[in-house]
Amino acid sequence: MTLDALDRELLKTIADLHDIPSGAVNIRKDGQGIERKSTKNITIEPKQDKSGINIYVAPNTRNEAVHFPVLLTLSGITDVVYNTIEIGENSDVILIAGCGIHNPGSKKSQHDGIHEIRVKKGAKMKYIEKHFGGGEGKGERVLNPKTVLVLEENSIAEMELTQLKGVDSTVRVTDAIVKKGGKLVITERLLTHGDQEAISKINIILEGEGASAEVISRSVAKENSKQIFKPEIIARAKSRGHVVCDSIIMENGKISSSPAISAEHPDAELTHEAAIGKIAQDQLLKLMTLGLSEDEAVDVILRGFLK
Amino acid sequence: MTLDALDRELLKTIADLHDIPSGAVNIRKDGQGIERKSTKNITIEPKQDKSGINIYVAPNTRNEAVHFPVLLTLSGITDVVYNTIEIGENSDVILIAGCGIHNPGSKKSQHDGIHEIRVKKGAKMKYIEKHFGGGEGKGERVLNPKTVLVLEENSIAEMELTQLKGVDSTVRVTDAIVKKGGKLVITERLLTHGDQEAISKINIILEGEGASAEVISRSVAKENSKQIFKPEIIARAKSRGHVVCDSIIMENGKISSSPAISAEHPDAELTHEAAIGKIAQDQLLKLMTLGLSEDEAVDVILRGFLK
Repeated sequence: MTLDALDRELLKTIADLHDIPSGAVNIRKDGQGIERKSTKNITIEPKQDKSGINIYVAPNTRNEAVHFPVLLTLSGITDVVYNTIEIGENSDVILIAGCGIHNPGSKKSQHDGIHEIRVKKGAKMKYIEKHFGGGEGKGERVLNPKTVLVLEENSIAEMELTQLKGVDSTVRVTDAIVKKGGKLVITERLLTHGDQEAISKINIILEGEGASAEVISRSVAKENSKQIFKPEIIARAKSRGHVVCDSIIMENGKISSSPAISAEHPDAELTHEAAIGKIAQDQLLKLMTLGLSEDEAVDVILRGFLK
Repeated sequence: MTLDALDRELLKTIADLHDIPSGAVNIRKDGQGIERKSTKNITIEPKQDKSGINIYVAPNTRNEAVHFPVLLTLSGITDVVYNTIEIGENSDVILIAGCGIHNPGSKKSQHDGIHEIRVKKGAKMKYIEKHFGGGEGKGERVLNPKTVLVLEENSIAEMELTQLKGVDSTVRVTDAIVKKGGKLVITERLLTHGDQEAISKINIILEGEGASAEVISRSVAKENSKQIFKPEIIARAKSRGHVVCDSIIMENGKISSSPAISAEHPDAELTHEAAIGKIAQDQLLKLMTLGLSEDEAVDVILRGFLK
């Protein structure tokens, strides 16, 4: 299988890939698997009953990565995919997902990715997901990721979720259950512009003793875009949770942030903080006295904020 | 009119009153007004169409107070009251509301107080409301206050809302609109014990330029009690809002806190923070090394926290 120039461009944007990577890989394009490769420790197989794949990472697999990006290059396509991922005990792996939409026409192109991920005892997973929309058409680019995560005892999951450009509408849902000693860190970076809308809902249940979760959300709403954040942590055991939402609004951007924390155990420790405001004027002025134009200064600040 | 010993006890608890106070006053007992007194600047009159009173504070009234406590001393009573309060321009007054229920029997006693308050241009109002439940009966004590507040230009309202004991169920709703240059500060103190349940919803809309709002909520959930907090600030103008919710849980107490901030204007600045946890162990140990028993130490910490 060869990738065309557009595929390569999208893959570079969403997965930092310049070609088909070594290691386990599954590339889905316009509703079809166009490349699939398992390795000794990582098996990727198509689902029999519905669209999507199963990824099995064998126990004790270390320092390996799985790439499974999704590309949409047609206008008027709705692609729904169900992926089931199991990270074997004591493994330490990186998953690179992500979806790039290049919409060349006037119809809506939509990808709904439903992921079920189980990180087994003592395993560590880093999950990187970038979302991007492009293409010269006026058709909407819609991305609705749903991730259901179970962290077994003493497992660790770090999730980096990023959407920086071109996605007209997104409803992002992440549900997680963290068992005894498990640790979940979710970092979300979101930028919306134009008339885009983004909704992010995160629900984390700290179920076992010593479980912990941290949600760090940074977002920028430019022009007429709107964002809604609803992260929630529920503690049902002696556990710790922390939610931070920092947002910058520009022009007519609107952001609503309502993190919820619920303590259902006397030894739970939960905190959250949130702030919404415009770019700090002193920071802007400082950069401009260094010779940057206002636009350049804004760009530098936003890049730093969303890094 | 004379007050009996029980009335006096309730009045002392909810309004720091030892007798009928000087100044404007309205005392409501078991669904009836038992004492009403207007002053030159403050007029209190009964509503014609429904249960409740109108309180008019004349413009430029300064350093005056209005007491309008409610007492329930019967079991099986449901008292619904509608009060309309208008604070005249450039006034500076204190309102002392509050409700005490002494339930001697096995039936539910309930007070629903619906207040509409308008603080006119340049006026300042301090509003103090204490809620208390007592009595030897097993009947429920229920208090559902609803306050709808409009702060006109450059007015200031400080609200101190306290419920420290004996209220089995409460749904507290506070809705406010803050116009240009207005300032609202709401301080809520809540302690629940036994099987009590408390829900507090605050919705503040910052409508005018330079408006500001601060919500400071401190709460303790002991034993099997449950609390839900939903404070929200919506900024529709260049304005500032801040929400802080600090909660202590003990035994099987459960608290859910979900402050929401929504910026609908590019010059809005909104922040919130919340924390739920148990009493700091080091603080407890320190007090115990000073000779206090554990119970005494807990009591000292909670009193400080809820002060």
